Amino acid sequence: VTWPALERFLASPAIVAVFDDAALLQAMFDFEAALVRAQAACGRVPASAATTIAHLCRAELYDGPALVAASARAGSLAIPLVQELTRAVALVDPHATPYVHQGSTSQDVLDTALAILTRRALALVDADLAATVQSLLALADAHADTPVTARTLLQPAQVSSFGLKCVQWAEPLQRARERLREQAARGLALQLGGAAGHGGALGADGPAIAAHMAAALHLAAPDAAWHTQRDEWVRLGLEAAVLTGSLGKIATDLALMGQAEVAEVAEPTAPGRGGSSAMPHKRNPVGAMVALAQAHRAPQRAATLLATLGPAHERGLGDWQASLAEWPALWVGAHGALAALKDVLARLQVFPDAMARHLDALQGVLHAEAAAALLAPALGKAAAHQRIEALCARALAEHQPLPALLKAALRDDADLRGAMGPDAVDAVFDRAAAVRWPAAEARRRAAALAAAAARLPVLAPPPDDSGDPV
Amino acid sequence: VTWPALERFLASPAIVAVFDDAALLQAMFDFEAALVRAQAACGRVPASAATTIAHLCRAELYDGPALVAASARAGSLAIPLVQELTRAVALVDPHATPYVHQGSTSQDVLDTALAILTRRALALVDADLAATVQSLLALADAHADTPVTARTLLQPAQVSSFGLKCVQWAEPLQRARERLREQAARGLALQLGGAAGHGGALGADGPAIAAHMAAALHLAAPDAAWHTQRDEWVRLGLEAAVLTGSLGKIATDLALMGQAEVAEVAEPTAPGRGGSSAMPHKRNPVGAMVALAQAHRAPQRAATLLATLGPAHERGLGDWQASLAEWPALWVGAHGALAALKDVLARLQVFPDAMARHLDALQGVLHAEAAAALLAPALGKAAAHQRIEALCARALAEHQPLPALLKAALRDDADLRGAMGPDAVDAVFDRAAAVRWPAAEARRRAAALAAAAARLPVLAPPPDDSGDPV
Amino acid sequence: VTWPALERFLASPAIVAVFDDAALLQAMFDFEAALVRAQAACGRVPASAATTIAHLCRAELYDGPALVAASARAGSLAIPLVQELTRAVALVDPHATPYVHQGSTSQDVLDTALAILTRRALALVDADLAATVQSLLALADAHADTPVTARTLLQPAQVSSFGLKCVQWAEPLQRARERLREQAARGLALQLGGAAGHGGALGADGPAIAAHMAAALHLAAPDAAWHTQRDEWVRLGLEAAVLTGSLGKIATDLALMGQAEVAEVAEPTAPGRGGSSAMPHKRNPVGAMVALAQAHRAPQRAATLLATLGPAHERGLGDWQASLAEWPALWVGAHGALAALKDVLARLQVFPDAMARHLDALQGVLHAEAAAALLAPALGKAAAHQRIEALCARALAEHQPLPALLKAALRDDADLRGAMGPDAVDAVFDRAAAVRWPAAEARRRAAALAAAAARLPVLAPPPDDSGDPV
Amino acid sequence: VTWPALERFLASPAIVAVFDDAALLQAMFDFEAALVRAQAACGRVPASAATTIAHLCRAELYDGPALVAASARAGSLAIPLVQELTRAVALVDPHATPYVHQGSTSQDVLDTALAILTRRALALVDADLAATVQSLLALADAHADTPVTARTLLQPAQVSSFGLKCVQWAEPLQRARERLREQAARGLALQLGGAAGHGGALGADGPAIAAHMAAALHLAAPDAAWHTQRDEWVRLGLEAAVLTGSLGKIATDLALMGQAEVAEVAEPTAPGRGGSSAMPHKRNPVGAMVALAQAHRAPQRAATLLATLGPAHERGLGDWQASLAEWPALWVGAHGALAALKDVLARLQVFPDAMARHLDALQGVLHAEAAAALLAPALGKAAAHQRIEALCARALAEHQPLPALLKAALRDDADLRGAMGPDAVDAVFDRAAAVRWPAAEARRRAAALAAAAARLPVLAPPPDDSGDPV
Repeated sequence: VTWPALERFLASPAIVAVFDDAALLQAMFDFEAALVRAQAACGRVPASAATTIAHLCRAELYDGPALVAASARAGSLAIPLVQELTRAVALVDPHATPYVHQGSTSQDVLDTALAILTRRALALVDADLAATVQSLLALADAHADTPVTARTLLQPAQVSSFGLKCVQWAEPLQRARERLREQAARGLALQLGGAAGHGGALGADGPAIAAHMAAALHLAAPDAAWHTQRDEWVRLGLEAAVLTGSLGKIATDLALMGQAEVAEVAEPTAPGRGGSSAMPHKRNPVGAMVALAQAHRAPQRAATLLATLGPAHERGLGDWQASLAEWPALWVGAHGALAALKDVLARLQVFPDAMARHLDALQGVLHAEAAAALLAPALGKAAAHQRIEALCARALAEHQPLPALLKAALRDDADLRGAMGPDAVDAVFDRAAAVRWPAAEARRRAAALAAAAARLPVLAPPPDDSGDPV
Repeated sequence: VTWPALERFLASPAIVAVFDDAALLQAMFDFEAALVRAQAACGRVPASAATTIAHLCRAELYDGPALVAASARAGSLAIPLVQELTRAVALVDPHATPYVHQGSTSQDVLDTALAILTRRALALVDADLAATVQSLLALADAHADTPVTARTLLQPAQVSSFGLKCVQWAEPLQRARERLREQAARGLALQLGGAAGHGGALGADGPAIAAHMAAALHLAAPDAAWHTQRDEWVRLGLEAAVLTGSLGKIATDLALMGQAEVAEVAEPTAPGRGGSSAMPHKRNPVGAMVALAQAHRAPQRAATLLATLGPAHERGLGDWQASLAEWPALWVGAHGALAALKDVLARLQVFPDAMARHLDALQGVLHAEAAAALLAPALGKAAAHQRIEALCARALAEHQPLPALLKAALRDDADLRGAMGPDAVDAVFDRAAAVRWPAAEARRRAAALAAAAARLPVLAPPPDDSGDPV
Repeated sequence: VTWPALERFLASPAIVAVFDDAALLQAMFDFEAALVRAQAACGRVPASAATTIAHLCRAELYDGPALVAASARAGSLAIPLVQELTRAVALVDPHATPYVHQGSTSQDVLDTALAILTRRALALVDADLAATVQSLLALADAHADTPVTARTLLQPAQVSSFGLKCVQWAEPLQRARERLREQAARGLALQLGGAAGHGGALGADGPAIAAHMAAALHLAAPDAAWHTQRDEWVRLGLEAAVLTGSLGKIATDLALMGQAEVAEVAEPTAPGRGGSSAMPHKRNPVGAMVALAQAHRAPQRAATLLATLGPAHERGLGDWQASLAEWPALWVGAHGALAALKDVLARLQVFPDAMARHLDALQGVLHAEAAAALLAPALGKAAAHQRIEALCARALAEHQPLPALLKAALRDDADLRGAMGPDAVDAVFDRAAAVRWPAAEARRRAAALAAAAARLPVLAPPPDDSGDPV
Repeated sequence: VTWPALERFLASPAIVAVFDDAALLQAMFDFEAALVRAQAACGRVPASAATTIAHLCRAELYDGPALVAASARAGSLAIPLVQELTRAVALVDPHATPYVHQGSTSQDVLDTALAILTRRALALVDADLAATVQSLLALADAHADTPVTARTLLQPAQVSSFGLKCVQWAEPLQRARERLREQAARGLALQLGGAAGHGGALGADGPAIAAHMAAALHLAAPDAAWHTQRDEWVRLGLEAAVLTGSLGKIATDLALMGQAEVAEVAEPTAPGRGGSSAMPHKRNPVGAMVALAQAHRAPQRAATLLATLGPAHERGLGDWQASLAEWPALWVGAHGALAALKDVLARLQVFPDAMARHLDALQGVLHAEAAAALLAPALGKAAAHQRIEALCARALAEHQPLPALLKAALRDDADLRGAMGPDAVDAVFDRAAAVRWPAAEARRRAAALAAAAARLPVLAPPPDDSGDPV
C-alpha cells in the first residue's frame, strides 16, 4: 500500500486502494490502450498494432517503483511509462511503436488517469452517503418527538427535536450526492489535447477519437481539452471539500453531545475500538475523531486546488503538478471521514433521558422568548425582554422553575398583574407543546429527504475493464 | 468608505460601495421592514404597527458607528440594531414594539443582509464578465490566424493561435456567469429560522411569511432555514474564488507575455496608470497586478469559508461570525480582479510581429513532434524521437533552421535516406499550415461561446427598494 | 474609521485605530520626512529643503480618499502620495522638489509604513499579553488545588488541577511575548533599497542614511533592503498567527467548560454583553466567540503571507501587493482575540463545585490507570487493563463507585484475591492525593512563569513623532 | 515505500525514506525502549524486564501493515503497537509486562517518534542547504560584475548584478539554517506527559526519566510535556514552510530567466531529464518545477498546522491527529524542493551575453531615474520625471538610444539647454559604472554570507541507535 500510516489511520482501506500506485499506473495504461484502440477504430492505426500495444498496457508487466523513481527526473510520471511501453512494444512488433501514445501528451495521460480513479472514488462515496442518509432517516423517525436542547453559541437556546437534528445532518449529505453527480458530469472528463492542448496532432479525427475513448473509459467527452481550464475539475474537488465540511459538522455535534457531562449520544462500542494505551476506562469517539481530522485538512487542500487553478500558458510549471499530488488526498480524506461516520451513525446510541434531564435542569428558561413575547403587549418589547431576562437569571441561580417565578411575579408585581393568566404561563412552558413544531418539521423534512433519496439510485461502480485490455 | 486603503487599492469603487457599512446596515433594516410587513400581510401584526416600524427602518436615522461599537460587546451587530429600532418605535408608538423583529433572530438578519448585498455584487460581476467575454471574443476574432508560441512548463511547445488563447481565457468566464447564476438560485436565499433555526416562533405562517419576504427582498425562499446548513451558501462563495482563479490565469499569461523580452501584448496606457515613484520609464501592468493579488488571496478566503461551513449545534461560536467577516472580502476581491482585467482587455495592445519573431527564433523546433512522427515508421518511435531531439539541440545551439538540418540528414545519413522527401519536410515545417488547426478551433469555440453569451442576458441589478420602506 | 463593521465587530478599537487609513498615510509621510532629514544630515540635501519637505509631511494637509482612489490606477499608494507631496513642495519652494523621495521607491515607503504601524500594534499586544498572563497566574494561584477533570479526545481522562490548566494557557502567551520581541528585532526593519533594491541611488551614504532613519522611526536598520527577502517579515507575521492560535486554544477550553451542562467556568457578566436579539435567558460567551472567530481566520491569512513570501525578481507583481493587504488584518485579528480574552480572564467566574460534581459522577474511573497498574504484577498488563476496563464499564452503567466494585472483586474473584488490599484501593482512589501532583506542577510552573514575566517589562509604545515632523 | 507516486515525483528518495512507515514504527519502538531503560536506570523497573522489553522493540518483529490497519479502529497507532509489544513480552517474560509503556500514553509515543524522524530530516535539510549556499556563493563570485536587468512588477527597472541576485537567493537559505537549528532546540523535544499530560504517573522521577530518554533519543528535554502547547512545535513546522517559500522564490526567478525569449540561465542537462512524452525539442526546467510545486503546497500545510495548534482540553479530538498526518508532508515537501534546486544550482548554466543583449535592447531607459535626477534641479522633480518619461517612450518605440535622444533634447530644447553636459549624459548611461555599486554589494554580502556559513558547520545526522536497542 503506497500511502503512509498516518494517512491510512484517518482513511478507509477502500479509498486508499482506489488511489494506490498500482491503480494509478494501470489507469495510465488504460488511457494508452484506449487511445490506440480508438485510433484503430478511426483507421489511424493498424488493428494489429493496436492489439499489440493494448495487450502490453498492463501495469503488472512493468517495474512500478522504477517508473516512479524515473518520474522525478523526467518531470512527469507519463514520460517513463510511455518509454517503457514503447520499449516493450518494440520487442514484440517494432512497426507498432509509432502508434504508442500517438497524438497525445503527458498531461492527457495523468489527468485522465486521475479522472478514472476519481470515478471509482465517487461510487464509493455515493454508496456510503446513501447508506448514511438512511441511517439518519431511521434516527429521525425514531426520535422526531424526542425533545433536545437546541444550542446556539454553545449555550442552550430553545427546545428542539433530536429527530430534526438528524434530518439537518442528513440534508447536506443528500445534496452532496446530487452535486457530486452533477459536477462529475461536467468535470470528470477525458483529457485529450496533445502537446499544446489544441488537439492539432489528431486533427479532425480528434472528436471521434475522444468520443470513443470517453465511452471506453466511462468518462465525459469534453468539447475541448481542459489542460489549463481547470475550473470544472476544481469545482469537483471543491465538492469533496464541502462534503468533508458537512461531515465535520456532524462529527462536531456528536462529539459535543458525547461529552461525559452531556452524554446524550455515544458512538457504538466494539472490541478494540476507541480505547487508550494507558486508561482502561476510555471510550474515545474515534469516528468523530477521523471525521474532524479530515475536516481540519480539507479546506487547505481545497485552497491549494484553487491556487493552482490557472496554470501559466498552455501547461503550468509546478502548479499543475501540485494539483495532481493534492487531488487523491482530497478524496481519501472525504471518504475517510464518511466511512468513519457511516459506521457511527448506523449504530449510534441515543439517550433521550439525558436530553430530558438537561432540559429539566434549565428550569424552563428555554421558553423565555415565548414568555417575553406574551408580556410584550403589556410592557413593551424592551421591558418584557428585560423582565424575563432577570427572572431567567434568578431561576438558574436559585434552581427554581421559571414558570413558578413568573406566576409569582404576575401575582405580586403591580405592573405585571393580569398581563398573563396562569394557564397561559403553563401553555408557554409546556415542553410537549414546544417540541410539536420541530417534530413536525422533522417529519416533513424527513419525508422530503426520503423521497429525494429514493429518486437517486446509488451510483454503480464503473465496470473494471483493466483486466481486458483488448 | 469603511474599507481600508490597502484593500481599496486592489478593488473597484463599485464593489466597495456594495459592501460599505451604510449599505450593510440598510440591508439589515430592509430585513426588519420586510419581516414586519410580511407578518402584517399574514395578519400577525397590525397594519399600522407594520407601517410605523417599516418607516423607521432607514439606516440614516441611526448612529451607525455606535451600532458597530456596541456589536462587539453584544456579540452581534443585529442586537444593538434591533434595540435601537425598538427604542425608536417606542417613541412613535409604544404598542408597536412587540412586533419589532418578532419571531426572528440575529442570524436571520445578518445572513439575509449579506444575501441582499451579494445579489448586488452578482449583478456587477455578471455585467463586467459579459463585457470581458465580448472583449475577448473581439480579440479572438481579430487574431484567430495570428501564430503564437504555445508554451508548456514555461518553455516553447508548439505553434498555436493567439485567438485561441483569447477564447480559452474567455470560456471559464462564461462558465462563471452560468455557475454563479445557478448557484445563486440555490444559495442566495432568505434566512428565517428564528432562535433555534426551526422556525417555531412563526409556526405554520412561516412559509407564507418567508415567501412574502423573499419576494420583497429579491431572494430565493428556501424550504427551511439554513442556519447551520451552509453548504449552498459556501458553494456560492467558492464560485467567487473559482472566478478569481480564472481571472488570475489570464493575468498570469498577460504578465508573462508583457515582459520586455517577450512584449507580445501590453496593457493599455493612460495618464497616471502604471508609473513608478522613482523610474520614469516604467509602465507597470497594474491590471494584471490587481488580478494576481486577488488570485493570491482568494484560495485562503475560500478555505476559511470551508473551515466554518459546519457550525456547532444550532448556531456556531466563532465559526459563523468568522464567515460573516470573510464573505464580503471574497466578492470585493473577485470584482476587483475582474474590473481591473476588464479595462485591460477592452484595449489590450497585441503585437503579432513579436509573436512571429519568437517563432522565427526557435528555428522550427516547435514542429519537432510532427517531424518525429514522420520518421517513426522508418526508425521506430524511440529512435525517431532521439534523432529529432539531437537535431533540435543543434538547431538551437548553432542558430540553424531545423528543416535545413533535417534535409541534410535525410540526404547524408544512411539510416534516414529516403525516410522523408524534402516536400514532406517543408510541409511539416509550414507555419501557416500549423496554425490552421488552432485557428479553426479558435473560430469554432468562439462561435459556440458567442452563442452561449447571447443566450444569457446580463443580470439586471436588483431594484433598490431601500428608499421606499413601506 | 476605515474598517468594515463585520471586522470591527471582531476587533478592538485600539488596534483598528493603529491600522486606520489616517495612520497609514501619516506613517508614509513619516518615512518621507525621515528620508529627507537623514539625507540632510549626510549633506546630500540642503537643510532648508529638508525642513520645507518635512513640514509638509502631515497627512492632514492632503485629501486622503483621493490618494487612495488614485492608488488603484497608479498601482501603488506611494505614487500619488509622492506626487502630491512634490506638488505641495513646489508651491513653497520649487528648488526643493528634487529632494522629495530622492533615492527611494514605492516599496520603501509602504513596507516601512507598515513596520511603523506594526511597532505600535506590538506594544498593544505586549501590554495586553502581560496583563492576561497576570490574570491567569492569579487564577492558577487561587485554583492550584482545585481538582478538575482532565479531558482527552473530549472524554474524561484523569484528575488534574484547574490551576494547572490556567498555567498551561498562560505559558504560550509568555512565549509569544518573547518570540514577538525577538522576531521584531529581526523583522521590524526599515525598508530602503531604492528602485532595484540594491540601494545604488544612495550609494555609499546608504548605510548612514538608513541608520539615521531607523533611529528616527524606531525600527531596526537592516544590513540590506529586504524587498524580496521577506522571510524575517513573514516570520513576524507568523508569530501573530501562532499567538492567535494559542488564544483560540484558551477560548475553546473556556467555551467547552462554559457549556450549560458543564458550567465549570463562565464569562463575566455586564450590561449589553452576550445577550440575544430573541432569547432573554441567553448569556453568550462573546469573548470566546471573538477569539475563536479570529483563530479560524489567522491560519489562512498566514498561508497567504507564506504564499507571497518570494516575489519574482526585484519586486513582485501581485504577490507583494497581496501581502500588504493581508498584513494589517493579521494584527487586527490577533489583538481582537487577545483583547476579548483579556477581559474574560480578568474576571472569569470559576465554579469548583461543578468541577467536583463531574468528578463524583465518574465513579472513580479516572483512577483506572493507577488501579490497573497495581493489578498488573498479579495479572499481567493486558489482563489487568481488561479487568479494570470491564469494571469501569459496570461502574458507569450501574452508577456504582468503582472502588467498591473493585473491593468486591478482590474479595470474591479467585484470581484477584490478595492482589491488592483495601487500603491500597482507597489510596488509589483518593482524589486529594490525585490532585497533589498536578497542583505541585501548577505551582512550580506558575513560579517559573511569574519569574519569566517579571524579567520582561511591558514594551513601551513607540514615541509618537508624527506631530513633530522636523 | 509507503508514499504515493504523485508525492514521490515531487520529493527526494532520502526524505521519503526518513518518513517511511518502517522508520516511523521503529521510532515508536525506540521511544518504548528508551522509556523502559530510563525507568530501569531510575530503579522503577527491574533491569532484566527492561532488557527483555527493549530487545523486543524492533519493528521487524511485528506485522507493520496489521498495526496500521488496527490503528484506525483504535484511534491511535500507538495502541496496537503497545498491545503487540505487550503480547510479545508476555511470551518471553510475563512478569515484565507491567513495565511496558508504563507511565506513558499514545501521544507521548507518536509525538516523540515524529520528533526523532524530524531530527533526521533536519540533518538532510541542513546539509543540502549548506551545499546550495556554497553553489550560490560560487555563482556570486563568478558573476558579481555581470550586468543583468533588475525587474520589478515583471518589467525592467534598473541595472543590477547577476552575482547580487545569487547572494540574495542564498541569504534566506543561510537564515533558514540558523532558524531551523534555533527552533529545533526549542521544539524538537521529547514528549512525556502521561495520560493527562501532567506527568503524574511518573511523579518525582519524571524529570530524571525524561532527561535520560531525551539523551538517548537525541532530543531536547522539555520543562514539561507539550501535549496541548504545540506552539514551539508548530513554529518548527512553519520554518519548513518559510524555507519552501524561499526556495520557491529562487525557482520562480530561474523559471522566468529560463524562458526561451529570456534565456539568461538554463537548468543543467542530463539524459532523461526534463524531456517530454511528445515533443523531442523540449527541455523542461524540472528542478524549478518541483520547487514551485512544493511552494504552492507548503502555505496550506502550514495553515493546517496553525489551525490545529490548540487542541481542546488535555488532548484534542481530530486536531492533534490531523497535525500528525500533515507534519511529515511538510518536511517531505521542503526537502523535495531543496534537493531539486541543489542539483540545478550546482551546475546552473548562465548566459551573460543574453543578459547584456536585453540591456542593450532597452536603449538605456534603465538609467532614466538617474537622468531625471540630474534634470530635476533645472526643471523641478515632476517636470524632469515627465520629460524623461516621454523620451523613454520614444526611445523604445523608435528603437533609438535614450542618451542620443537626451543629448539632442539638451541641444535643441530651450528649457533644457545647458541643464546637463554631454559628459554628464555619458556618465549617467555608463553601464559599467551602473553595475559597480550592485557588484560591490554582491561582494560585500557574499563575504558576510560566507563567513556566516563558515561559522555554522553542517548538522551531523543523529547516530542511528535503532540497531542497538539495549
